[in-house]
Amino acid sequence: MSPKTIRDAGKLSINEEYREISPADFFYRNRDLAGFSNPTRSLYSAIRELLENSLDACELYKILPEIHIRLSLEGATEDTKESYIYRIRIIDNGSGIPSEHIPSSFGQILFGSKYRLRQVRGTFGLGGKMAILYGQITTNTPATIISSVGNGKSYEFSIRINIQKNKPEVLEKKVHKNKTEWHGTIVEFSLEGNYIRAMPRVLDYLRQTAMVNPYADITFIDPSGRLYKFERGTSIMPEPPKETLPHPYGCDVELLRRIISVSKCTNMFTFMLTHFHRIGKKIAQRFLTYAKIDKKMNPQKLNSNEIVHLVRMMKSYGDFLPPDAACLSPLGEDLLGAGIRKELNPEFIYVEQRNPSAYSGFPFIIEVGIAYGGDIPVSSGITLYRFANKIPLLYDEASDITRKIINDGINWRYYKITPNLPIAIISHICSTKVPYKTVGKEFIADRPEIERELKAAIKTVARHMRIFLSRKNRIEYERKRIDLFAKYLPKIAKFSTELAGKKKIPDIEPLLRSIRRYGQKED
Amino acid sequence: MSPKTIRDAGKLSINEEYREISPADFFYRNRDLAGFSNPTRSLYSAIRELLENSLDACELYKILPEIHIRLSLEGATEDTKESYIYRIRIIDNGSGIPSEHIPSSFGQILFGSKYRLRQVRGTFGLGGKMAILYGQITTNTPATIISSVGNGKSYEFSIRINIQKNKPEVLEKKVHKNKTEWHGTIVEFSLEGNYIRAMPRVLDYLRQTAMVNPYADITFIDPSGRLYKFERGTSIMPEPPKETLPHPYGCDVELLRRIISVSKCTNMFTFMLTHFHRIGKKIAQRFLTYAKIDKKMNPQKLNSNEIVHLVRMMKSYGDFLPPDAACLSPLGEDLLGAGIRKELNPEFIYVEQRNPSAYSGFPFIIEVGIAYGGDIPVSSGITLYRFANKIPLLYDEASDITRKIINDGINWRYYKITPNLPIAIISHICSTKVPYKTVGKEFIADRPEIERELKAAIKTVARHMRIFLSRKNRIEYERKRIDLFAKYLPKIAKFSTELAGKKKIPDIEPLLRSIRRYGQKED
Repeated sequence: MSPKTIRDAGKLSINEEYREISPADFFYRNRDLAGFSNPTRSLYSAIRELLENSLDACELYKILPEIHIRLSLEGATEDTKESYIYRIRIIDNGSGIPSEHIPSSFGQILFGSKYRLRQVRGTFGLGGKMAILYGQITTNTPATIISSVGNGKSYEFSIRINIQKNKPEVLEKKVHKNKTEWHGTIVEFSLEGNYIRAMPRVLDYLRQTAMVNPYADITFIDPSGRLYKFERGTSIMPEPPKETLPHPYGCDVELLRRIISVSKCTNMFTFMLTHFHRIGKKIAQRFLTYAKIDKKMNPQKLNSNEIVHLVRMMKSYGDFLPPDAACLSPLGEDLLGAGIRKELNPEFIYVEQRNPSAYSGFPFIIEVGIAYGGDIPVSSGITLYRFANKIPLLYDEASDITRKIINDGINWRYYKITPNLPIAIISHICSTKVPYKTVGKEFIADRPEIERELKAAIKTVARHMRIFLSRKNRIEYERKRIDLFAKYLPKIAKFSTELAGKKKIPDIEPLLRSIRRYGQKED
Repeated sequence: MSPKTIRDAGKLSINEEYREISPADFFYRNRDLAGFSNPTRSLYSAIRELLENSLDACELYKILPEIHIRLSLEGATEDTKESYIYRIRIIDNGSGIPSEHIPSSFGQILFGSKYRLRQVRGTFGLGGKMAILYGQITTNTPATIISSVGNGKSYEFSIRINIQKNKPEVLEKKVHKNKTEWHGTIVEFSLEGNYIRAMPRVLDYLRQTAMVNPYADITFIDPSGRLYKFERGTSIMPEPPKETLPHPYGCDVELLRRIISVSKCTNMFTFMLTHFHRIGKKIAQRFLTYAKIDKKMNPQKLNSNEIVHLVRMMKSYGDFLPPDAACLSPLGEDLLGAGIRKELNPEFIYVEQRNPSAYSGFPFIIEVGIAYGGDIPVSSGITLYRFANKIPLLYDEASDITRKIINDGINWRYYKITPNLPIAIISHICSTKVPYKTVGKEFIADRPEIERELKAAIKTVARHMRIFLSRKNRIEYERKRIDLFAKYLPKIAKFSTELAGKKKIPDIEPLLRSIRRYGQKED
């Protein structure tokens, strides 16, 4: 290295411009990360994120969802081959948002009610705002939000996002009377998109959403005025997910510091009891003995090394109870089965729900269904429908853990499942924290605990498919055998009668019946 | 909906807790997004992000990189099957960081010098900080940063990230004399990891990094003290990437607003000339006529509708010059070829650099190499090495656009490329903005413009592979033919001599030579 280069570097370095950008600015610059790459994909993502927010707003309060989405063509862009301007309007009957939180809930990235440990569709508190932000940067128009929590008033805001500051700017605010005590939220804004190209994915998305949310009523009106109605198949709703305390196994140093800073406990024993999931007196006692921590010690007095020690002990202690899945809201075998029947209309179906399990302290439940025939397409492989916290995952299937297991982890021949059969597998994972690998929520990371559960569930449903297929083959075989008898017995009877020189052909019906009965008995 | 439910919803809604979280908190909660999912992956990501920052710090100033990474085992965690505590230390000879920016550059998410339009490895300004943040939450110890820009002083900071506030906390600051005018940065901290499991990926990553950065000297000492040295293969460096103005085609409403707010131009004509990429007087004139915008108009006076109109016009105007790739720093055919030769030691190699192209106003260049034999493994498919802005992409190959083209977009039989040949394809995309689909920079989104260029490049190199393979087959055939002659001619000569009753066997060498020469001539 010559001295010249050294000095040059020193000088040049000073010219580097360092600055801070806001979270809104970060996602504005990197919207590919959140699924807003091009007009087609962005329109799909916008519809999806808004619908998921609406479903969450209903389900958390056990309200049967009634959601109405209207997409209308507002005008052409100059580049009519690539994109158009649409107006999107979504109405839900969810809980509504208190008026003071409306502007930030729709106009500030990383603000919201989703940063809690419970199972919801949205996990990043980003999607809805990204849709509005995308609408704003492509059309430069504000978004309109109307919401009421069901009291006497509803509030209407016209907002714009100040991207550089990550703050909502309220352009207009109106207060309406709400005599019917309507509750819910209406979101409306304009955005660039390409519905013609996005249509197949949008409709797939809606269809699959209806499959795993059979208690929801979803209406979609597309830009040509065509109405798609996904009607409620059942009024039974799963219990709303509950918020839960962190499980000690998933606790890290940062979380422990935060808990200590807000805790009012004055000794470690009550501290463990109060702030962690599934720790009772016995376990608290045993754990503190194991960790060699005095149960009378004041948690506020833990020093830096002791905090690290405590976290490590939590990870290594083997006798905590596994996370309780009461905070989860799986579909259940009946609901998932009903959804699959409604949408795929199959000849055979089997659904398996695994017992709750956990990864890194987060509880999860795997549900897997298998179906044969009906509207399931025949393909060289197995058709896969993936769901996570009741949302369909449509993109990047190749990288998903479930697809990997189906392709490489199962010996399908053992289950008599060969290519070119109309077989579909439906997988659903619900968790307080689904380990997505992208902000766009497209696919699930390969966590070994999740892989193990998925594999076990797929094997179980495959076993039932094997029984069904064997039976189906046997019935098929029997039908062919009886068809053969039915075809030739009359001829033999007739021929024998003639040979014997008799006139009355014997009645072969009882014989055929007995064969048939035998065939049926064997099933 | 019963009135009771309505009122319940209203009441419940008020209990929702709304809050804002900081960007550091967001990535702390969602570290899977940035590639910090488990001890194995996190250790890999940490090494990778630090190395990429160091390479950028050298390359932007055309300094031949000398980078030294040491990973040492610091201790066991209680869960010794899963993870250990390591200390990582990386030293580079890059430009260094001005002392006033050191704490924020390493302790504040979304702060940095990377938010500019030029080709660098890091694009999110996240990775290095995520590594430090991960170290902090797993070991609760601060990070040490030493840096100098090559003047008389170097600065040492001990910092911790306040995650809830997204601010660095300086625990200690020292100023050292720097008589040698050393410039560069040293980063050192502790983190949890699993090197035994991460090792194959880490070494692959380093090997592949060396392949596309043949001018870099990289040393890695692993926890067992083993030294891996990736030596510089050439002292020729590509030109450092330059910063560029935004191309009008990629401009959106938000960007246009920002440009207007900082512009000092008083009329639209100079505005277009000053703030956009590749707009000269003629094009500015023609474009404003096309867009029906008065060239004397003051840009500050554009109203909301006019801004939208201007952006649409920029997108639809077909006669802008394509983005200039001077701001890009591709490897070039020689450098990429040298890198491939150095690492794969192949029998045949062909490298193609495509002309610059653009997507959404961002320029990009595709470089593709093909290689045969040497250290390339024989597999049923084609081995693929993917690079973007000179970083290897190792994860999620199945979702990557290049893998999709290789698997589904090329008729390999036409190129005489059959399974089980030792063939590798090396793809490199460089751009001021690589459209990654994840913050972890694992794979590239399918942009049609990029797909087209990649496909064309792969076809070109495949054509050269076809010629090589034909030639190789012909040589093989000739060798067999000559071997056959060489084997039987002496016997025939001997036999004929005996038959003729003579004693002296004729000299067959001239004959063999003539056949050989014929065989060589044909090649």
